Amino acid sequence: MQEVANAIRVGAEAYLRRQYKTISIIAVIFTVLLGVAIRDPTNQWLGAYTAVGFLLGALCSNLAGYVAMYISVRSNIRTASGAITGIDRALKIAFRGGMVFGLTVVSMSLLGITSLFVMFGGDPRLIVGFGFGASFAALFAQLGGGIYTKAADMSADLVGKVEAGIPEDDPRNPAVVADLVGDNVGDIAGRGADLFESITGENIGAMILGLAPAVYAMFGVNGLIFPLLARGFGLIGTIVGSFFVYSRKKEDLFNSLTRGLIVTGIVCAVGFYVLTEFFLGGKLNFFFAGLVGIVAATLVAWITDYYTSYRRRPTLGIANASESGPAPSIATGLAVGMESSGLFIIVIGAAILLAFGLGNNFHSLGSGLNISDPAFQEGIYGTAIATMGMLSVTPMVLAMDGFGPITDNAGGILEMSGMPDEARETSDRLDSVGNTTKALTKGYGVASAALSAFLLFSAFMEVAGLHGVDIARPEVFTGALIGAMLIFLFSSLAIRAVGKTAAVMILEIRRQFKEIAGIMEGKSKPDYSRCIDISTKAALKYMVLPSLLVVLGPIAVGLILGPEAVGGLLMVGTVTGVLMALLMNNVGAALDNAKKYIEAGYLGGKGSRAHAATVIGDTLGDPLKDTAGPSLHVVVKLLNTITLAMAPVFMAALLV
Amino acid sequence: MQEVANAIRVGAEAYLRRQYKTISIIAVIFTVLLGVAIRDPTNQWLGAYTAVGFLLGALCSNLAGYVAMYISVRSNIRTASGAITGIDRALKIAFRGGMVFGLTVVSMSLLGITSLFVMFGGDPRLIVGFGFGASFAALFAQLGGGIYTKAADMSADLVGKVEAGIPEDDPRNPAVVADLVGDNVGDIAGRGADLFESITGENIGAMILGLAPAVYAMFGVNGLIFPLLARGFGLIGTIVGSFFVYSRKKEDLFNSLTRGLIVTGIVCAVGFYVLTEFFLGGKLNFFFAGLVGIVAATLVAWITDYYTSYRRRPTLGIANASESGPAPSIATGLAVGMESSGLFIIVIGAAILLAFGLGNNFHSLGSGLNISDPAFQEGIYGTAIATMGMLSVTPMVLAMDGFGPITDNAGGILEMSGMPDEARETSDRLDSVGNTTKALTKGYGVASAALSAFLLFSAFMEVAGLHGVDIARPEVFTGALIGAMLIFLFSSLAIRAVGKTAAVMILEIRRQFKEIAGIMEGKSKPDYSRCIDISTKAALKYMVLPSLLVVLGPIAVGLILGPEAVGGLLMVGTVTGVLMALLMNNVGAALDNAKKYIEAGYLGGKGSRAHAATVIGDTLGDPLKDTAGPSLHVVVKLLNTITLAMAPVFMAALLV
Repeated sequence: MQEVANAIRVGAEAYLRRQYKTISIIAVIFTVLLGVAIRDPTNQWLGAYTAVGFLLGALCSNLAGYVAMYISVRSNIRTASGAITGIDRALKIAFRGGMVFGLTVVSMSLLGITSLFVMFGGDPRLIVGFGFGASFAALFAQLGGGIYTKAADMSADLVGKVEAGIPEDDPRNPAVVADLVGDNVGDIAGRGADLFESITGENIGAMILGLAPAVYAMFGVNGLIFPLLARGFGLIGTIVGSFFVYSRKKEDLFNSLTRGLIVTGIVCAVGFYVLTEFFLGGKLNFFFAGLVGIVAATLVAWITDYYTSYRRRPTLGIANASESGPAPSIATGLAVGMESSGLFIIVIGAAILLAFGLGNNFHSLGSGLNISDPAFQEGIYGTAIATMGMLSVTPMVLAMDGFGPITDNAGGILEMSGMPDEARETSDRLDSVGNTTKALTKGYGVASAALSAFLLFSAFMEVAGLHGVDIARPEVFTGALIGAMLIFLFSSLAIRAVGKTAAVMILEIRRQFKEIAGIMEGKSKPDYSRCIDISTKAALKYMVLPSLLVVLGPIAVGLILGPEAVGGLLMVGTVTGVLMALLMNNVGAALDNAKKYIEAGYLGGKGSRAHAATVIGDTLGDPLKDTAGPSLHVVVKLLNTITLAMAPVFMAALLV
Repeated sequence: MQEVANAIRVGAEAYLRRQYKTISIIAVIFTVLLGVAIRDPTNQWLGAYTAVGFLLGALCSNLAGYVAMYISVRSNIRTASGAITGIDRALKIAFRGGMVFGLTVVSMSLLGITSLFVMFGGDPRLIVGFGFGASFAALFAQLGGGIYTKAADMSADLVGKVEAGIPEDDPRNPAVVADLVGDNVGDIAGRGADLFESITGENIGAMILGLAPAVYAMFGVNGLIFPLLARGFGLIGTIVGSFFVYSRKKEDLFNSLTRGLIVTGIVCAVGFYVLTEFFLGGKLNFFFAGLVGIVAATLVAWITDYYTSYRRRPTLGIANASESGPAPSIATGLAVGMESSGLFIIVIGAAILLAFGLGNNFHSLGSGLNISDPAFQEGIYGTAIATMGMLSVTPMVLAMDGFGPITDNAGGILEMSGMPDEARETSDRLDSVGNTTKALTKGYGVASAALSAFLLFSAFMEVAGLHGVDIARPEVFTGALIGAMLIFLFSSLAIRAVGKTAAVMILEIRRQFKEIAGIMEGKSKPDYSRCIDISTKAALKYMVLPSLLVVLGPIAVGLILGPEAVGGLLMVGTVTGVLMALLMNNVGAALDNAKKYIEAGYLGGKGSRAHAATVIGDTLGDPLKDTAGPSLHVVVKLLNTITLAMAPVFMAALLV
């Protein structure tokens, strides 16, 4: 076991070191460009502030990812040994690993923002660079990690399971270690960076909105530090919630985790009440806005579960369609993914409208008003508080998310080191819960991206001095078209990167099966390092172009067509990105779970026609749900943080 | 042959009659509602005008679809006999059938608009109901037809080809007649209604923009009738172009059709020049704007061909990926579909910016201006002229589009009546060209939807008295989210309708194969009418909910959240709709052609692993490219025509 765990640790550390080196080089170039390009007549040091913030943001993001991976690769082997002892112990070890991960990521964001806020003299507009840097590094990390993990996973499945007929995580498969490394660099380090930038961007956006004259007049500096304090209560809530994660006899493990989340939510709600009393002058309408966010987070989790769990109608529909073949199965999967946007959008839309109304005591829904009106500013601050409410449970969600890859790894370690079947069964139970929590956190990630984006829009419009975005202007409509196009092109490149890498690795696995004598009999070991090498090189190579595309695209539009066109790009890019991310995450998860349902023995079970159809669907879903989908969460927020940081530059556009 | 052709004709006529009955009932209800709901203080008869226009628009659309089908079901048998004589004769018969179809659809639109324009006293704002009615009926027709044709096609393939191993269009397949009927009601009647509403909506939008004070001051009533005259030149151009469609020895048939299109384009360009000289006071900048549209139409056709033809890199990439299995094949297909949006959006965006600039002599790109400024109005009129340029070749494009299903039907008739192989080879050559032209017209359909939508936006903002759409307003952002959601939900319902219908039909085909003795030996005939009945009932049943969703969705948003929220819905719904339509059309066409490439003998040919993978991909692509995708063209324009007609009602919204 030690040997396998070491191989995973070495592989993950080696990859992340190379990845962070690549990101650092590109980040340093951008730092210089930002410092030179950003000029503001009212503050000659704005460029320098933004550049320093950017570099720090990128560094902190990398560090958060690295720490998360560091903990994960040490928790997996302990979870594996725990599984030999019993389920409660294994659950607790895996969950605690995830919790350290969650607390670290959130604390680092809080620490970074607070220090910069104090150092830069208490003006949140000067620290937008930090948010941009965090998004920037997160995009590379999530995309690179996603390519790494899914290329290894897809090719291990296609050659190992389908062609050679050996089980998952079998030590005879040359790509198996690369697959396990991938879980750590993609799901752990990548998702950590994703949520690091999510809470960072949202915090900065909310603080900027606290500067709006009407809000500042009401709360003063309290309105600026409220977001930071709310984040602190999230940490406390998670620690309290964690005591409620244990396995009762016969209890569904998923319920153990849900119990922890609910307790966290309650503690956060109490925290919001206390904060409202002491910092927002007891204006309870803002407390209720915070509650709206917490409730919306819970509803989104429920909707994601409904559309992707195999206990529910939609995924069962996919399983049934699989009896007619792979094409009907995948078509139904696509339909389920598209349908899942319905309830989700209704919840998000209702949350925004309600929080806005609560913010200004239902004075007006904003028509005829704009960001210069007090009632509008109060309403927007209400939506900011709701976003904080939704994101307050982040550390707990991250803990649940980290739980997934840790148990996945533990299962792999047990399988590869030939441990007794009972231990593997325990880890399998944990793993299937991990799959569900991973789907939930992705839903949560998309929801928080949508809410943060609305917040960051408002901040952008305030910084750029825009009062509206007129879609009938040709450059705005063009910007809007480009916004949606960037999402599609990025997704295309991400999916293709996985496909190209998998194609190379498939050849390598086939070669090893053919050329290394005795590999199938377990007499000689496959050359794991070659597959690790293929994934590493390809991830580093293919992560650059799509990332630069979504960074440089909005900058080019802003420089040529001006801030209003960027507004169009932002609006449509955000909405398209949110929906495409949701589609890809949910299609992938639903197809995966339809397969698991059949593997549980229904509709003919393993080896049936229906099972073959779902295996194809699951393999197709992999790059959608673990590479393109989660990377799009980051893209959505990156579009917003770029434009926020670059707004002063866009005001002197070329063409308009 | 006569017998088969009769069965197709009877089936198509019976279905269309029932479909139009359903549409008529819903349309009459809406007519009454429109008449009652639309109130305008400046014109008490606006509701009545809109209601009458709406009913007429729906009627004309149905009539256009019916006439198109009438011609098509009579051309198919003649093409089949022509194919026995030789390729040139068959090409000409099929193309002439398509041409009558194209000329009819365009003439009916021209006739309807001109009559109403004259009857309603020369004010184009009073005839927006006609555009709404045309979109309304088109949506039902395209969606119902699409469900009909693809449910039959999918299940015929899944049971016939895959399970029973009999070739396409084999008379032993019980679903074969339903499949051939489907080509006529989906591809012919549906696409006819689609382009009927496209040119109708664009004509009305352009005429409204001719009313803008600055434009009216320059051109007076000439600016209003220019769109109608341009349309007339399109008809002449098509007639001239048709003389250039003939088959030279050894010539690629696709080139014959392209030659006709190019000649049409040249005649239209000359027509634009003449019209500019005589009606727009020789202002050549508007002539150049028209040229921009014609060139953009050509480029879009080229891009579509590039991404979907099997002579090009993208589709070859899918074919190569198919060697690793169906999942990599479909993933690559999705990547190609998403990538295809890149060049497309660049062409559309550039066309809009350039035409706007030409319209106001590059005075300004619109920033700081809005619809009340003269330079802005002139620019927008420039984009209107470019849209007319793009749509001037419509009758020729429709002729090329109609060509596809006619030859497809001819092939089916030859196969079913056991004609000699040479005739079938001739029809196969025609059919493969038909596949390419169908993909091209869909690209053209999306491009024209994007341009028309921009035009109709402007018209909507003028009618609703909006000066901008502020995305930072909560109700506008919510509207935007709902706009994208409607596109996703509609697509989901459309795909699912095909899947559900196919599942029922699969059971029926399997039942007939099992229960009817001697069917596989060709001794007894299958019961075709049962399959026709299943398709008919399902299409009528499933077309209603998705259509009502996209009609009532924007109305509800407008009534509750007001015109600015509808602006957000329109903007994001249009852009998302355009990109999703493009994605689905191109994924489907590329997967189809990857299969055709392998069937031509490459990568192992028929029966290889790669071939099996592409068969799955093609079946998945069918409902995307022929049901959901083309219906989305209509949805995009419908969103615009609804809001244009309902604008006066939205001004008194509930919540804002």
